[in-house]
Amino acid sequence: MTADVSLAAGRGYLAIPGPSVIPDAVLQAMHRPSPNIYAGELVEMTATLIPDLRRVARTEHHVAIYISNGHGAWEAALQNTLQPGDTVLVASSGRFAIGWSEMAEALGIKVELLDFGTGAPWDMDQIASHLAADTAHRIKAVLAVHVDTSSSIRNDVAAMRAALDACDHPALLMADCIASLGCDRFEMDAWGVDVMVAACQKGLMVPAGMGFVFFSPKAAEARARLPRVSRYWDWEPRANPEEFYQYFGGTAPTHHLYGLRAALDLIHAEGMEAVWARHHHLARAIWAACDAWGAGGPLRMNVQDVALRSNAVTSLHLGGDDATRLRTWVEQTLGLTLGIGLGMAPPNSPEWHGFLRLGHMGHVSGQMIMGLLGGVDAGLKALEIPHGSGALEAASQVIAGAGAASVAETSERGSCCG
Amino acid sequence: MTADVSLAAGRGYLAIPGPSVIPDAVLQAMHRPSPNIYAGELVEMTATLIPDLRRVARTEHHVAIYISNGHGAWEAALQNTLQPGDTVLVASSGRFAIGWSEMAEALGIKVELLDFGTGAPWDMDQIASHLAADTAHRIKAVLAVHVDTSSSIRNDVAAMRAALDACDHPALLMADCIASLGCDRFEMDAWGVDVMVAACQKGLMVPAGMGFVFFSPKAAEARARLPRVSRYWDWEPRANPEEFYQYFGGTAPTHHLYGLRAALDLIHAEGMEAVWARHHHLARAIWAACDAWGAGGPLRMNVQDVALRSNAVTSLHLGGDDATRLRTWVEQTLGLTLGIGLGMAPPNSPEWHGFLRLGHMGHVSGQMIMGLLGGVDAGLKALEIPHGSGALEAASQVIAGAGAASVAETSERGSCCG
Amino acid sequence: MTADVSLAAGRGYLAIPGPSVIPDAVLQAMHRPSPNIYAGELVEMTATLIPDLRRVARTEHHVAIYISNGHGAWEAALQNTLQPGDTVLVASSGRFAIGWSEMAEALGIKVELLDFGTGAPWDMDQIASHLAADTAHRIKAVLAVHVDTSSSIRNDVAAMRAALDACDHPALLMADCIASLGCDRFEMDAWGVDVMVAACQKGLMVPAGMGFVFFSPKAAEARARLPRVSRYWDWEPRANPEEFYQYFGGTAPTHHLYGLRAALDLIHAEGMEAVWARHHHLARAIWAACDAWGAGGPLRMNVQDVALRSNAVTSLHLGGDDATRLRTWVEQTLGLTLGIGLGMAPPNSPEWHGFLRLGHMGHVSGQMIMGLLGGVDAGLKALEIPHGSGALEAASQVIAGAGAASVAETSERGSCCG
Amino acid sequence: MTADVSLAAGRGYLAIPGPSVIPDAVLQAMHRPSPNIYAGELVEMTATLIPDLRRVARTEHHVAIYISNGHGAWEAALQNTLQPGDTVLVASSGRFAIGWSEMAEALGIKVELLDFGTGAPWDMDQIASHLAADTAHRIKAVLAVHVDTSSSIRNDVAAMRAALDACDHPALLMADCIASLGCDRFEMDAWGVDVMVAACQKGLMVPAGMGFVFFSPKAAEARARLPRVSRYWDWEPRANPEEFYQYFGGTAPTHHLYGLRAALDLIHAEGMEAVWARHHHLARAIWAACDAWGAGGPLRMNVQDVALRSNAVTSLHLGGDDATRLRTWVEQTLGLTLGIGLGMAPPNSPEWHGFLRLGHMGHVSGQMIMGLLGGVDAGLKALEIPHGSGALEAASQVIAGAGAASVAETSERGSCCG
Repeated sequence: MTADVSLAAGRGYLAIPGPSVIPDAVLQAMHRPSPNIYAGELVEMTATLIPDLRRVARTEHHVAIYISNGHGAWEAALQNTLQPGDTVLVASSGRFAIGWSEMAEALGIKVELLDFGTGAPWDMDQIASHLAADTAHRIKAVLAVHVDTSSSIRNDVAAMRAALDACDHPALLMADCIASLGCDRFEMDAWGVDVMVAACQKGLMVPAGMGFVFFSPKAAEARARLPRVSRYWDWEPRANPEEFYQYFGGTAPTHHLYGLRAALDLIHAEGMEAVWARHHHLARAIWAACDAWGAGGPLRMNVQDVALRSNAVTSLHLGGDDATRLRTWVEQTLGLTLGIGLGMAPPNSPEWHGFLRLGHMGHVSGQMIMGLLGGVDAGLKALEIPHGSGALEAASQVIAGAGAASVAETSERGSCCG
Repeated sequence: MTADVSLAAGRGYLAIPGPSVIPDAVLQAMHRPSPNIYAGELVEMTATLIPDLRRVARTEHHVAIYISNGHGAWEAALQNTLQPGDTVLVASSGRFAIGWSEMAEALGIKVELLDFGTGAPWDMDQIASHLAADTAHRIKAVLAVHVDTSSSIRNDVAAMRAALDACDHPALLMADCIASLGCDRFEMDAWGVDVMVAACQKGLMVPAGMGFVFFSPKAAEARARLPRVSRYWDWEPRANPEEFYQYFGGTAPTHHLYGLRAALDLIHAEGMEAVWARHHHLARAIWAACDAWGAGGPLRMNVQDVALRSNAVTSLHLGGDDATRLRTWVEQTLGLTLGIGLGMAPPNSPEWHGFLRLGHMGHVSGQMIMGLLGGVDAGLKALEIPHGSGALEAASQVIAGAGAASVAETSERGSCCG
Repeated sequence: MTADVSLAAGRGYLAIPGPSVIPDAVLQAMHRPSPNIYAGELVEMTATLIPDLRRVARTEHHVAIYISNGHGAWEAALQNTLQPGDTVLVASSGRFAIGWSEMAEALGIKVELLDFGTGAPWDMDQIASHLAADTAHRIKAVLAVHVDTSSSIRNDVAAMRAALDACDHPALLMADCIASLGCDRFEMDAWGVDVMVAACQKGLMVPAGMGFVFFSPKAAEARARLPRVSRYWDWEPRANPEEFYQYFGGTAPTHHLYGLRAALDLIHAEGMEAVWARHHHLARAIWAACDAWGAGGPLRMNVQDVALRSNAVTSLHLGGDDATRLRTWVEQTLGLTLGIGLGMAPPNSPEWHGFLRLGHMGHVSGQMIMGLLGGVDAGLKALEIPHGSGALEAASQVIAGAGAASVAETSERGSCCG
Repeated sequence: MTADVSLAAGRGYLAIPGPSVIPDAVLQAMHRPSPNIYAGELVEMTATLIPDLRRVARTEHHVAIYISNGHGAWEAALQNTLQPGDTVLVASSGRFAIGWSEMAEALGIKVELLDFGTGAPWDMDQIASHLAADTAHRIKAVLAVHVDTSSSIRNDVAAMRAALDACDHPALLMADCIASLGCDRFEMDAWGVDVMVAACQKGLMVPAGMGFVFFSPKAAEARARLPRVSRYWDWEPRANPEEFYQYFGGTAPTHHLYGLRAALDLIHAEGMEAVWARHHHLARAIWAACDAWGAGGPLRMNVQDVALRSNAVTSLHLGGDDATRLRTWVEQTLGLTLGIGLGMAPPNSPEWHGFLRLGHMGHVSGQMIMGLLGGVDAGLKALEIPHGSGALEAASQVIAGAGAASVAETSERGSCCG
């Protein structure tokens, strides 16, 4: 009797673009009895989360924590700044910008959509013209997805602020950093962002279940002008609680808060610059492998321009049904789970099976990325999908440069290309 | 040198009315890597939760799961059934009915409040008159808190349905079972409830972070008539998902789902009737102790009528600042945390310090309740708060009757007094 | 259909005399990946355990850690000090002194047994005579069980040293503190103990799997005179390792070491005097309850003299098969597990079912003890076993005195009656 | 300011030859309260471990579980079969055979050592001659290390049995499978092994703390002839317990038993043939990489003959201090921990820094091994240690063949080369 050998026993590796790999320290911190929610340790600990969240977002301003996922944080941002009949401008480079705009429409908000597809970044000229033409300031906010998890395009949020300022447009700049926070450099205050939306299950390395909305004083003023805001979404008491329960509009997400504390400890022990540098270095290794594979076969990164690539997620195209075959093989044979393509083709269409994504956000090391790429390489070989050789060696060469590279170098890069 | 002896080292016991004690099996189930959220084990497991949630609520109808706390579930219930300008009737026996009505008002809903205070149940005659007078059917829904966690009054939800039916009033009957689900008998379908709101951190024994809204076909029709519903709260795709992410309007609360699976396994292995019988029996032990203490001192249960007492929470009055003193002593000296009074006096007022609550919901055994009562008894003695003797012996006598009592007996009681 | 109500769902309570209740912090610390065993964190952390173990034993001398249970530590103590043909004196007040002597005999050591039964402490006069008569110093060591877990008698180890000194007898004084360490005051150096044997699963609150042998310079000299010592048991390299693996004679018990670190952190944060005072206070509460029960029924503590009772375990007699009935009822109905009697009657004999033991060692609080006693009280009532009333109230009165009692008071008591 | 980029944040990977990576299921199973050790769940569960341990060792005979590490199991095997003055033959291909022989000598046993160094397997001719010459049957046992963790040589245990049988020598065949059990095929009964020694922290995937001794009826007879056996090591009551505590000569290793149950569940769900096939396939990938690296630089596998290589551990030589440099770089930069060389050069000698080992035992998948190799490749590049190119591609090619390979194929191979 003959059976295939499976090499899948062992620690699984979930390399999808969120949820990401949860650190042991976070899971340990969450394995504890329920705490008192009125006084004591939890109350004191929660207060320490706020400044540490601000440091991740590079802001001096406000943060509201929600028991929700990222979609909930999207809704919270909209509910605190806009009312039915208001207009927003949405610049889209992927599925998630569309998703946020659909959420706005469901709230009765008018959406002006500049859709640049899934293969191109924002066209800043077109956006500038659009804003300049809005002399009546009909547009109340610009919805800007920093990294679109579907296309893996990283847009230039600072440039959006410049475009608004260039025509003295008063619209709020609202950024979605769900996929990028803690992975790609983001500087909320320096970049002039008014509202920033994030969630805990990607770069923040906590099991899904919390959303965050950061907001500026200007956004707080917009909130103050609204006739009413839903109690659950109202960020005002959450950001300025007089009683502990107001942080969360009711019962606190007790265990998630302990998990978040552990995750923030990891992040700030490493340092934001070091965290960003690590993600960038690892992303470069992935890109080097993809370039090599692509040189001898159909594999293509969705984003050609290096300056537009995210450090957190890489969207790939293989064509045919090879993406699905590859995902299936590495999961069943190696215990490695890759992300499905999203927004690149209609779900379940024949084309859909040609796309996939690699997640490389949060709790990822050089060794893990080499395992991810090694798994993909083996899958390409096993399935006889044509691919260039030397991909792993190219990635290894990048990883090997970790000592020679430096945090400051990456830091400069980050500030020049936003 | 002399220092007080502390007896607090050891396993802490959180006896507040939620969050409740989390079973080891639930925490174990949550201590795991993030799963794939697009296919595989999580997807299959989540489907098994739905029928088991229905069994807890005794309904054949729909359930939507939210990443939220109970307040979020309140908002979800309102957002799916009502629009600004609509009117609801709220019958209140405690702080939480008021809280729900405030949430409705913040959404632009008009509230007609029948406030029976914190010491009395619903006056069904008054409610019936109010409903009968609404011949124009201005009232779209009745908000009915089954057990108000603040007062610990258990209201008769089936009687509310009878009152509606008696005058052929079409309003939806919306019940808040946040404090009672899994503790006090609740029969959604048999009692004619259209919408039921619950959360995971009390009788369901999962760390805070999930809310549930159960709804009937009639409620689904009300939803269908609304011009728009917020994407995050919309229960329609959550209850009838075509894609997995629709269950949760985005990313799934991965670890909480595993925790819920473990909790539902515990509940249904014990059996709903047995779970209710256990809670009732334990509550009777608590009441027996309170009666004995009260016979020789100031301690009073807030609810005098046994038929109106919850099996999940007991609100107590000691007077002066003795409640705060007692809570402080048992926590510092014994590692036992009792609940603060809520809604019985203004927060931080002198009177506030005279109230406290005992939580006895979810993962509680006879031995735990004897430890809770023993701790309270020792605290009364240590602080020289007058109290009748024999309280623990009285409770022990009730506990001892566990063998003689029976699930069916309790069941009958449950069905006669709603 | 009628079924008994069970009140057992909820957190179980294992109140047997070891293994004891494991603190959450210990289990958390053990839930981690395997560490490197040649360098790094584990190596550095292990070095910190040694001084903290010494502080628990009140010694400045040596400690060897074994991967073993307490029986392994017994054997280690014998193997490092004695050889076949040597003679030891064993003074017995329970089953475990007999067990240790049997282990010695299996190693070819001659045992002179002074057996005082299971109801009496050492007769120091008889022992003194025996030692004085040994003018040839045939006896190489005295095996002295501090607290015999079977009878719960606490013997006076310092008096044994005095008896040896009184006749200038050179025998080693070897104490078994498996049941008492971290519960009953023990002062290794002040009391002149040469070898002390302990294990991790009782007062040290770590899952079973480690034994400890503490030894004095005099014992080290005895070891040095032996012609050979088994490699696994040899305490010399374990206590004075040049390489990390020598601590453990091979691979380290990695996860247990992290657990022990967490447990020692708890113990020393509380303070040895406070730990002992807590155990004594809790034991007094138990004794008060037992006195009250016994006043109206057959329940008797095995140790009548308060000065001879252990703070860690209480051996009880009920007679008939009532002990087994009681244990069964509280476990099945309340989730409370009591200890079987041990060494008081032949296993499975009719008499055996009349004995039981309560464990109150390690991670125990005032609230837990009240739960334990409340469970027993309910069981006595449920089974209609005659018992005096007021037991819980008597215990509660003791617990209530925690504020008034003091660590120093207990400390004095401890030093006078050793 | 410039700082090196570290890529070490993320899940660490401990790739040393034991302790190995612990599965989440095992850690979860161990994160639980202490159980009763006299009756109930633990007692019933423990009984299920025995047949499942036998299946791992491919034996129908006895197994004794020890709270110990592998060295303890070594000692147990010796103590149950030999007495001071007895003679054993030790055939050595590495440090651990020497270690076992030293342990025998410390017990007063005479050792005849045939030392084949660290680079060669047993010379069966020389062994056969040695045995044949022992016509007086002075040799009571042959100590045979299956895989020596230091050299990574896998010896042919079945051939040793053949050599004994060829000259009708009655000596017991005692195998050390500490490094190999659950990784390299081992067939205790088919290969005529009398005593087999193992531990839990390698192929069995449980945190260090348990040893196992499997023994045949013939070995049991040898035990029966001994005048005495230490109580702690005596395998007779452990293998044939009348009371539960006899399994463990005292208190059970409670949490480890739950961990072992989970590990055996994983192993037998995969199937022994599949487990062995996976290890072999992964080892082949490692060897392919090593061959490629060695083609262009100093890296050499210690074992040249493929048929002599273990599937569990690979001992490597780099020369100079490059092994230490490589280990340091991959740990600090990538979070990957490799094993030190052992027994190949004196500890801390200059030569010592030229050796290292890769552990690939137990809970390892194809993706993990590619991460391990990728990390090593990056380290070689970063440190500019010459090495041939294409190593990762060669390993990937092997991994890719997983589908084409088959369990049965490996099985045949296993049975032919033992």
